[in-house]
Amino acid sequence: MNNTKSLSTAFNQAAYPVGGHGKRNVQVLMEALKDIDGSLESDVYGKGKVIEDFQEQMAEYLGKETAVFFPSGTMAQQIALRIWCDQKGVRRVAYHPLCHLEIHEEDGLKELHHIEPVLLADNGRLIGLEDVQHMPEGIACLLLELPQREIGGQLPDYAELEAISTYCREQEIKLHLDGARLFEILPYYQKSAAEVCALFDSVYVSFYKGIGGIAGAILAGDKAFTNESKVWKRRHGGDLISLYPYILSSDYYFKQRVHKMGQYYEEAKELAELYNQCHGVATMPVEPVSNMFHVHFDMPIEQLESILIRIYESTDVGLTQSLRKTSETTCYCEVGIGDHYAELPKDKVKIAFQRLDEEMRSSVV
Amino acid sequence: MNNTKSLSTAFNQAAYPVGGHGKRNVQVLMEALKDIDGSLESDVYGKGKVIEDFQEQMAEYLGKETAVFFPSGTMAQQIALRIWCDQKGVRRVAYHPLCHLEIHEEDGLKELHHIEPVLLADNGRLIGLEDVQHMPEGIACLLLELPQREIGGQLPDYAELEAISTYCREQEIKLHLDGARLFEILPYYQKSAAEVCALFDSVYVSFYKGIGGIAGAILAGDKAFTNESKVWKRRHGGDLISLYPYILSSDYYFKQRVHKMGQYYEEAKELAELYNQCHGVATMPVEPVSNMFHVHFDMPIEQLESILIRIYESTDVGLTQSLRKTSETTCYCEVGIGDHYAELPKDKVKIAFQRLDEEMRSSVV
Repeated sequence: MNNTKSLSTAFNQAAYPVGGHGKRNVQVLMEALKDIDGSLESDVYGKGKVIEDFQEQMAEYLGKETAVFFPSGTMAQQIALRIWCDQKGVRRVAYHPLCHLEIHEEDGLKELHHIEPVLLADNGRLIGLEDVQHMPEGIACLLLELPQREIGGQLPDYAELEAISTYCREQEIKLHLDGARLFEILPYYQKSAAEVCALFDSVYVSFYKGIGGIAGAILAGDKAFTNESKVWKRRHGGDLISLYPYILSSDYYFKQRVHKMGQYYEEAKELAELYNQCHGVATMPVEPVSNMFHVHFDMPIEQLESILIRIYESTDVGLTQSLRKTSETTCYCEVGIGDHYAELPKDKVKIAFQRLDEEMRSSVV
Repeated sequence: MNNTKSLSTAFNQAAYPVGGHGKRNVQVLMEALKDIDGSLESDVYGKGKVIEDFQEQMAEYLGKETAVFFPSGTMAQQIALRIWCDQKGVRRVAYHPLCHLEIHEEDGLKELHHIEPVLLADNGRLIGLEDVQHMPEGIACLLLELPQREIGGQLPDYAELEAISTYCREQEIKLHLDGARLFEILPYYQKSAAEVCALFDSVYVSFYKGIGGIAGAILAGDKAFTNESKVWKRRHGGDLISLYPYILSSDYYFKQRVHKMGQYYEEAKELAELYNQCHGVATMPVEPVSNMFHVHFDMPIEQLESILIRIYESTDVGLTQSLRKTSETTCYCEVGIGDHYAELPKDKVKIAFQRLDEEMRSSVV
């Protein structure tokens, strides 16, 4: 029996998934289109009202001069780093070892742009001011991911972020924001997006994480930067004749959900507490700083999968779709709160966590 | 007054545009989705039934082992050439000077892949066997675009194509098909797509030309080739979490229109005749070999624009949305036949061409 598949199947059959906004199916697109007039004209290779309006709206929201819609963050961020490297005449940037560009993009930055990253901090912690101060010479751009997804969505203190920004300006190092989950951290920082983005020279945001759109990204900065990014967008093959399916859905779900990030954040803290009350279970961070966190279990992955499947089947509550092994005796999962959480029957959730605690107690030495 | 804008405006206001399938608006997507079950699950980073089924269907149609869906042809073709270059260990390919990669992609092939093209033939004619036989040494791949769009959509004789293919196999030069308009040429060649594709090692086809979809492309070849193309697709930022808006519309309009290419081809020949009967007007090719051709006018662009606007306004027939200047006294436009042509009121079209002929006669010395 393939346990991973079974956990996923059991999760999909559970009536009450704890995280997310719902299934990623075609209905998500249909919903976004339902009030659109069919006569609305397509964007055409980056031009036209549908793309220009959204770009202007996002530039304003992010407090940047201009913004460009991209099919993906992978494309947008490689391009941002390339532009800053070209401007400085070096091919070196700095980022965290668990940066998306380092672990999820098949080395596109290196293979296509011949940019070498300097890795700051380590797999267990955030980049701090001291790491930045001790970077080698000749770094064109520092990329910060807020929150740092692969370590549970941790965030630096805002004062440290400001200090890093000030230092980079002094040193003439460009600062780029991987804001895949920027909207999600604003309630914790108690800042507007524009306030956070003002610390950065360029900013990428995504529309299919907390926003729950279909795909697509915005890259924002000053006009010279975004103009150059459009040239690279064409070179990458991202200047599609029509991006409107992604633009319209990004716009729709942005309006639906950007104001709900505070609610997701509170719910994430509530859910993390439920996990932390279970024996042998700990969240990272202990208190979430956004809608996301990781849950670490002191139990071998196969054993926990069997337990979770039984919990899903008996309570109809789906805690996670998948687990990842961290050692022979431990594993973890990622949680991201969306619209679903508010609709959960709390009594069933309580029972699910009681069972999890019992199972962990009876199994964990 | 901006004449170019006015011609476009007049064209958009004309009830009977001669070319194309209709406006590129959101209705095109809505139509493609209308019979889709909303519970159909999204593709996820290149996996899932919706993308795999379409890829298999296209691989079979093209007679290739495997196929990969890409957001754009720009991305697909750069990647195809890169793979063949890497395999041979050289960074040199050959193509026509008016190849899409040479004139429409901001030099992505050179800037991202450091591949240098050798240009064969010239702006006025197709690549022939002799050009290929006289290529310099060390060419990894020859790209042929069928039909050659920028010179009116011309095609080599099929026998010459076969000879080029045989020569390339003998010389161990990979042959790549830019088949942006492959479906459109099959009636002229009287061949199946698989028969044409059998002459090539790799093939790209588009779904928003004659097929009239929203965007998207297929790259097909053997399994080792397409597997490598998926790695590069991720590097380029094209491995989106969801490509289904493009896949579903490609599938829908492929089924709607691929069997109508013979009709479009016959209609293109009919329309070219109408143009060729006008004084100072000549189509390229004289007899089209697909649904497309160019129309060259012995008249300065500004003068012709004014004439066309009057014709559109008086007949409600829209001949072209835009003209391109070729010299101080000449200009041309591109025509692509789609669903619209069959619905035209022939009497109005006849009047429009009578007027065009009269105006050309009275103006052209």
